[in-house]
Amino acid sequence: MQSERALLGSGVRGAQRLEAELRASVEALPAGGAPARLAAAVGDALFPGGQRLRPRLLLAICAAEGGQDSDFAFDAAVAVECVHAASLVHDDLPCFDDADLRRGKPTIHKRYDEATALLVGDGLLTLAFERLAASEDPRAIRALRILLRATGLHGGLIAGQGWELEPSTKVSPDESAVRRYHAGKTSGLFAAAAGIGALAAGADTTAYTALGYRIGGLYQLADDLLDATATSAATGKSSGRDAALERPSLVRIYGVAGARAAFAEAFDDLLAAAPNRAVCMFLEAALSPIRALILPADAAPRRPAIAV
Amino acid sequence: MQSERALLGSGVRGAQRLEAELRASVEALPAGGAPARLAAAVGDALFPGGQRLRPRLLLAICAAEGGQDSDFAFDAAVAVECVHAASLVHDDLPCFDDADLRRGKPTIHKRYDEATALLVGDGLLTLAFERLAASEDPRAIRALRILLRATGLHGGLIAGQGWELEPSTKVSPDESAVRRYHAGKTSGLFAAAAGIGALAAGADTTAYTALGYRIGGLYQLADDLLDATATSAATGKSSGRDAALERPSLVRIYGVAGARAAFAEAFDDLLAAAPNRAVCMFLEAALSPIRALILPADAAPRRPAIAV
Repeated sequence: MQSERALLGSGVRGAQRLEAELRASVEALPAGGAPARLAAAVGDALFPGGQRLRPRLLLAICAAEGGQDSDFAFDAAVAVECVHAASLVHDDLPCFDDADLRRGKPTIHKRYDEATALLVGDGLLTLAFERLAASEDPRAIRALRILLRATGLHGGLIAGQGWELEPSTKVSPDESAVRRYHAGKTSGLFAAAAGIGALAAGADTTAYTALGYRIGGLYQLADDLLDATATSAATGKSSGRDAALERPSLVRIYGVAGARAAFAEAFDDLLAAAPNRAVCMFLEAALSPIRALILPADAAPRRPAIAV
Repeated sequence: MQSERALLGSGVRGAQRLEAELRASVEALPAGGAPARLAAAVGDALFPGGQRLRPRLLLAICAAEGGQDSDFAFDAAVAVECVHAASLVHDDLPCFDDADLRRGKPTIHKRYDEATALLVGDGLLTLAFERLAASEDPRAIRALRILLRATGLHGGLIAGQGWELEPSTKVSPDESAVRRYHAGKTSGLFAAAAGIGALAAGADTTAYTALGYRIGGLYQLADDLLDATATSAATGKSSGRDAALERPSLVRIYGVAGARAAFAEAFDDLLAAAPNRAVCMFLEAALSPIRALILPADAAPRRPAIAV
């Protein structure tokens, strides 16, 4: 129990340091050469944050594998969150989701304008890579390659968003097409975060990368379900976008009941697949609020049998 | 004369290899995980190219300083061109310049749609950094840092575009504000290209970085003048955007005649400042077409006295 408490403590401290590092990187922008209004908009894209799931996953895996709270791990965590935030800002633009709300507040292009939102996304992408490239840690270049691939045109986030625009995917999205779309758009960044977390602890990245893909798959299933069923008040962002935009969605393929059943099974499978107890605890704590939104009648997760 | 001819030959071969490398990187996209339509749009953003001034500057400086045609130099040249192309695609979007034409063809958002143009810009940015991060050359990380800084929020291209949106710059653009805007938006990438060219040859980067800023300043002066005075038919892109958008511009400050005189002087100064004859020859050849557009009555440049 002592080690669980210690891990929990390191999680809290890690989350606090993550916020402080993100805040510091925004506050350094005007002196570093960014126009004040653009820097403020970058800050609004990062704060208030969401759950910070991806960087916290990275830090939790690093801690669970005995990695220290190294500067490198935090550089990577900040970079992963900046890529995620960039993708949200661009995804919310009128030409994509045309979303008015994000985390309960007006989206960046609503608060400022489209041009600013465009630059905020470009800027956050670049800031992410700059952060990792500035690291003197010898593992930084490998982490940077992992993050760049998860972001870019080679099956990364940007490729994933591109599948939304591809005529073949729009017209008849079969399950494999939707899974490829989600792997790029969502799972890749979770996989990168998990893999880099293992890398930061000197652990093997393979099992954690696979775990990250699994988390991403679960998360995207939740996202599709919440978009189809939850109110904007419950999720803090515009809902009903997938149907309105004829977006490939697992709900469109499985139906709501089928997608819910798949989520319940995938949630339990995920906890059972966690390579160790600390990561299992992190995932259970981090994902239970989402589970409660998806499966309200059955909010307490079953305790999975895991190999400790 | 032999060495001049040899350098010219290496310039032609370098330009051909650059085109081939850019083409190969586009052609590899679909197999690498990019949706076909998005990959095609990335290709249309890179081909037909403009003058490829920035990567050719990089390669010319590398050759002039005795650098070999190393893979690293071409990785960097491709990366620089991808960043430039990304900036054009995003800059042309309706929320920025709202330009219909680029290099005599419809802009990417006109040929496809805004969402595709958004992803093309994001994708080209990421592709640029991915290319340099994939290099095994020990200088690649330094080149990557230089390029990231020239691109990002810390006084780079994205910061430069941000100054267009800053109320202080829009309302009363004094000369220093316009110069800061241009340094970010235009000169930084020239400076990065020049500095990385020197780095690729093992030469000192300082003088070449300064030369790059000077080239960028001249180029932006030309850009402002052509926007104010030339037709779209002459430049292959939408003109009159600066005035229409109340964009900070040196023409707004100096007037057309004053900006023209400043250009003529800066052109001669630039050639005189070239650190060696080969770079001077490159600049004269590369920039003379622009000079002829700006100063048609006086198309042949004066031969500057340079230290060989």
